[in-house]
Amino acid sequence: MDVSVVVLAAGQGSRMKSALPKVLHKLSGKPLAAHVVDSARQFSSDISMVVGHGAELVRQYFAESSVKFCLQNEQLGTGHAVAQALPKLPESGIVLILYGDVPLTRVETLQALVNQVADKSMGLLTVHAADPTGYGRIVRNAAGAVQAIVEHKDANEDQLAINEVNSGIMAVPAWTLHEWLPKLKNNNAQGEYYLTDLIAMAVENGVAVNTVHPFKEEETLGVNNRLQLAQLERWHQQQIANQLMTDGITLLDPNRLDVRGQLTAGRDCIIDINCVFEGEVTLGEGVSVGANCVIKNATIGAGTVIEPNTVIDDAAIGENANIGPFARIRPGTHMANNTKIGNFVETKKAIIGEGSKVNHLTYVGDAEIGTGANIGAGTITCNYDGANKYKTTIGDNAFIGSNSTLVAPVDIENGAFVGAGSIITKSAPADQLTLARSKQVTISKWKKPIKK
Amino acid sequence: MDVSVVVLAAGQGSRMKSALPKVLHKLSGKPLAAHVVDSARQFSSDISMVVGHGAELVRQYFAESSVKFCLQNEQLGTGHAVAQALPKLPESGIVLILYGDVPLTRVETLQALVNQVADKSMGLLTVHAADPTGYGRIVRNAAGAVQAIVEHKDANEDQLAINEVNSGIMAVPAWTLHEWLPKLKNNNAQGEYYLTDLIAMAVENGVAVNTVHPFKEEETLGVNNRLQLAQLERWHQQQIANQLMTDGITLLDPNRLDVRGQLTAGRDCIIDINCVFEGEVTLGEGVSVGANCVIKNATIGAGTVIEPNTVIDDAAIGENANIGPFARIRPGTHMANNTKIGNFVETKKAIIGEGSKVNHLTYVGDAEIGTGANIGAGTITCNYDGANKYKTTIGDNAFIGSNSTLVAPVDIENGAFVGAGSIITKSAPADQLTLARSKQVTISKWKKPIKK
Amino acid sequence: MDVSVVVLAAGQGSRMKSALPKVLHKLSGKPLAAHVVDSARQFSSDISMVVGHGAELVRQYFAESSVKFCLQNEQLGTGHAVAQALPKLPESGIVLILYGDVPLTRVETLQALVNQVADKSMGLLTVHAADPTGYGRIVRNAAGAVQAIVEHKDANEDQLAINEVNSGIMAVPAWTLHEWLPKLKNNNAQGEYYLTDLIAMAVENGVAVNTVHPFKEEETLGVNNRLQLAQLERWHQQQIANQLMTDGITLLDPNRLDVRGQLTAGRDCIIDINCVFEGEVTLGEGVSVGANCVIKNATIGAGTVIEPNTVIDDAAIGENANIGPFARIRPGTHMANNTKIGNFVETKKAIIGEGSKVNHLTYVGDAEIGTGANIGAGTITCNYDGANKYKTTIGDNAFIGSNSTLVAPVDIENGAFVGAGSIITKSAPADQLTLARSKQVTISKWKKPIKK
Repeated sequence: MDVSVVVLAAGQGSRMKSALPKVLHKLSGKPLAAHVVDSARQFSSDISMVVGHGAELVRQYFAESSVKFCLQNEQLGTGHAVAQALPKLPESGIVLILYGDVPLTRVETLQALVNQVADKSMGLLTVHAADPTGYGRIVRNAAGAVQAIVEHKDANEDQLAINEVNSGIMAVPAWTLHEWLPKLKNNNAQGEYYLTDLIAMAVENGVAVNTVHPFKEEETLGVNNRLQLAQLERWHQQQIANQLMTDGITLLDPNRLDVRGQLTAGRDCIIDINCVFEGEVTLGEGVSVGANCVIKNATIGAGTVIEPNTVIDDAAIGENANIGPFARIRPGTHMANNTKIGNFVETKKAIIGEGSKVNHLTYVGDAEIGTGANIGAGTITCNYDGANKYKTTIGDNAFIGSNSTLVAPVDIENGAFVGAGSIITKSAPADQLTLARSKQVTISKWKKPIKK
Repeated sequence: MDVSVVVLAAGQGSRMKSALPKVLHKLSGKPLAAHVVDSARQFSSDISMVVGHGAELVRQYFAESSVKFCLQNEQLGTGHAVAQALPKLPESGIVLILYGDVPLTRVETLQALVNQVADKSMGLLTVHAADPTGYGRIVRNAAGAVQAIVEHKDANEDQLAINEVNSGIMAVPAWTLHEWLPKLKNNNAQGEYYLTDLIAMAVENGVAVNTVHPFKEEETLGVNNRLQLAQLERWHQQQIANQLMTDGITLLDPNRLDVRGQLTAGRDCIIDINCVFEGEVTLGEGVSVGANCVIKNATIGAGTVIEPNTVIDDAAIGENANIGPFARIRPGTHMANNTKIGNFVETKKAIIGEGSKVNHLTYVGDAEIGTGANIGAGTITCNYDGANKYKTTIGDNAFIGSNSTLVAPVDIENGAFVGAGSIITKSAPADQLTLARSKQVTISKWKKPIKK
Repeated sequence: MDVSVVVLAAGQGSRMKSALPKVLHKLSGKPLAAHVVDSARQFSSDISMVVGHGAELVRQYFAESSVKFCLQNEQLGTGHAVAQALPKLPESGIVLILYGDVPLTRVETLQALVNQVADKSMGLLTVHAADPTGYGRIVRNAAGAVQAIVEHKDANEDQLAINEVNSGIMAVPAWTLHEWLPKLKNNNAQGEYYLTDLIAMAVENGVAVNTVHPFKEEETLGVNNRLQLAQLERWHQQQIANQLMTDGITLLDPNRLDVRGQLTAGRDCIIDINCVFEGEVTLGEGVSVGANCVIKNATIGAGTVIEPNTVIDDAAIGENANIGPFARIRPGTHMANNTKIGNFVETKKAIIGEGSKVNHLTYVGDAEIGTGANIGAGTITCNYDGANKYKTTIGDNAFIGSNSTLVAPVDIENGAFVGAGSIITKSAPADQLTLARSKQVTISKWKKPIKK
């Protein structure tokens, strides 16, 4: 059967104390609701999202996706929320109901849930909670079949002792929603329409309620405040760390790793303490990442060593390169194999040819450097004149003396040697020494400054 | 009734293995005893501190406060210690007895304790300890009234099973101290005068001993070695982190936050891993602080982004500014709104006007920069001649070419353009190009250096 | 009796998913097997290592040590492994059997084990495991004597309830190995020769099996995958942190300290969060190390302050010096007392005389600086001409103006003053002003660049 997905994302999340709708708060670098949508996509291209508080921001975030939006103007309960999506749901097939603030349910768990659905059966995700306080208890009959969900406040002593609780996540035959949602009542203390009432209707109508349990309780945890957000963040990071270690990556401290996106790492990579990876990062085999690095959207070749305190953003690094410490590699940097970027060096839109070195205190922006070149300490490519940006070209095996100023557009030809401290405004010809230097003089009658 | 406070701060703390008296060791950036005094100030302006080991250093630290010092030459027990303060204590009113090495008792807890005191009743802070080993047990009668404190080593089996223990912190009617302290005996194994003997005297004299419990056991924990110091430090940081999250701040890892002083943060601030805040730091709404930043005594306006690995000390930053990564903002820096300080830039006594940018590898010291200026990479303000410091002034919309050297005192006028690599020693006139540059020459007969 | 040691280091460690043999994976900066060998050296200079998978790499690592290698071509069990060492073991004396992947057994524990050995008795290291699942249970008779080791899969219900398990580490009279190892059978499911069968032989032959327990279970834990490696790493770091705190060092967060080698620290040192120490590092009394520092092979004098985000490698620092933040001290740096290296400064093979300051954005390489000198911001020593390195000498009380370029070999004499921005290629004479500077000109008809 085809699966449609409804994601409930209309809640205010007032305990977040935020200007942002709750479901847009980020976990592992991605909004809570985007985690849910990304999981949902594994089953279905028919995803409806019920939005309410901050609806415009949520719509904007998902504008490029194919999610259908259903506006819930008033928050009248989960049953009411799903009802807003009814017009967009097919008459038949399976509907999987997810929550925009429950980000970490595994796809395998959801798949098991969907597998429970037939014309006369549905799947309910329940969990044996370490502390069931506050959750709806799963009441079963002698044969073990689910009979009811009893809310905590309505539970008697026997029911309170049950630790199997309702996660709210369920997969149902589409017909049940079309038939039963309109019949939901709000004759309760809150005056809300509860989705959980579907369970009673199922039991009444002979639709079997089959339960599925998650691998870990955290899969069913929602985020209602920033403490819970932090708890899930850390749990999620722990899972990522465990997987990386299982796959052959050494982590010096699994509790001090943050992956916010996708980190793909080859065998025998070593990641030191306190590193942050954002976006898509790929490390070749045996890459070593030093302490306190922040690396975003980068490809780093095998055997490359990233020294501590390095920041990389949107760059492609070759093999056996060496970067940092205290390097800042900005977008558009391409470093070939065996290159070296040293301390207090910034690169931006820079092509660094094989074997070239930029070791110290340098800015390389809008530049193309050939192979085997050596850029001295304190070199600045002057790429900006206050209005436009210009390019610097440095040839193979060129040598730029320290503290040089290369005023772009300018071409340092192959094998050219630029004398230290020179301001270069015109082409430096190949294999010759070019310099721009004032005469050194000594003022003999000079008097040392004295403290006023 | 008026409250007087006695803080016991005479102990040696030999297990700290330190040249510093124990009570001056810092927790959350502040000496242990200063935490106690700051809490005490909430009740009373009459604070006596009993000092002994390292008394001079303790007096020095609190010299500016209104604390009265009482010297305990020999450490003969807690009862003896409080007795040293007797001459400075009023005849009537309440005396709250605190310990300079028990830093984290909440003011609410102390208030509750003080509230127990009447002419014939006192308050005792007791705690149900996870592990009562070593502590004095609280023995109650059938009616639940405190009868005695039995030290661990004197306790029988029934008493050892009691997990309610004495914290030592108490609030008593002043008259009891004047009447009973002189009667304390030291006929015990240690030959010390124990303050806890007051409890027996109270029971004997019909003074009710009312107990108060702390919110958390950590409120009653003392510091005897650096492991305990670290444990309380981490617990305290956890409390701070929880409060920040509750107040609407996102912490990427609550276990990797250090606040040593007062951090005030607006809604929707995001603080990445491993940041340290010292002194008074105020963040406006939606400020983002990147990983590994150290920020001290700073005000940072709404919407400003601090990139990773930034160090800020004693600075005022406007709104929507952008700082770092690898920026070092030193005392006396004022950055207006929409300013940018980039990587490997140091500022000191620097006024940066609205919209101005100092993006790379620059030192701006003793300088005033107008609005809309652009300071090129590698620019150095030469503010020091070895004897005196001088000021650099850069006007609105000025453009300083890269690798320029501005020899203060010097004035770059509005709209002036300084050519890259120039050494500027005189005023650069408004809206004109000023430069100081040698002729570029190429030496055709030059021979490449060869490796010796 | 003399002690010989056999270290089993032939296993593949396939769950490490590594190109490196398991025993060469590092814990606390040192290969697992090197931890074992270093402990073994406390007892014996006669150490045999049984190698197999990755034998060549293991031999290489230990090439400089006096370890004897025994090749186990096929991995046919622990008994078979020890048998490979038989030809190298003496007929009499004690043989201590250790595992190259069990790195953290304390020397005291091993000593106690060795002490159990006599002609008719042996020592077996057993541990009361929190979770004995999977381990061989220690079965004792009514008198408490060890009768057998029963493997988990062979254990009956009573035996499964035993939580005392075999660590595999044992010390035995040498004669037992020579006599019994050749008699081991491999008639078990795995077809392997088990070392634990020695216990049955001992019991049978009236050799007493005396057990010794470790201080902590972690002493007996082996590393089979990178999760276990990380767990032992963190446990080991915790032990180091506890010892440092006990010895009088303040750690702002004991869970964020990494010592990979030997850190010796004087009383009242304060180490902030997230620091990494590698190799041999010695800190004098009262040294303060800021957050996020990485320090390797360095000696740092009393009272010196290392500001946050500083990287030091192979350097000697005097007393009351100040370094960082964002300093990078490279090999061969010697800083005298009261020196200052500031932000974005790199030093390499640099002697910095007492009281000298290099405060900002500078590269000092292959240089010798006298006492009381001041090196201005942006100064670069040009020590490399593309082929050879040359030295810069800066005299006492010299002043190097900002953004200067010192082209080595060059000598700045005592008290010389170099004007800001100068390119110095010849000696600057003592106590005089030397500069190299172009004339500052203003181009009045210049037109501001406009955005294309």
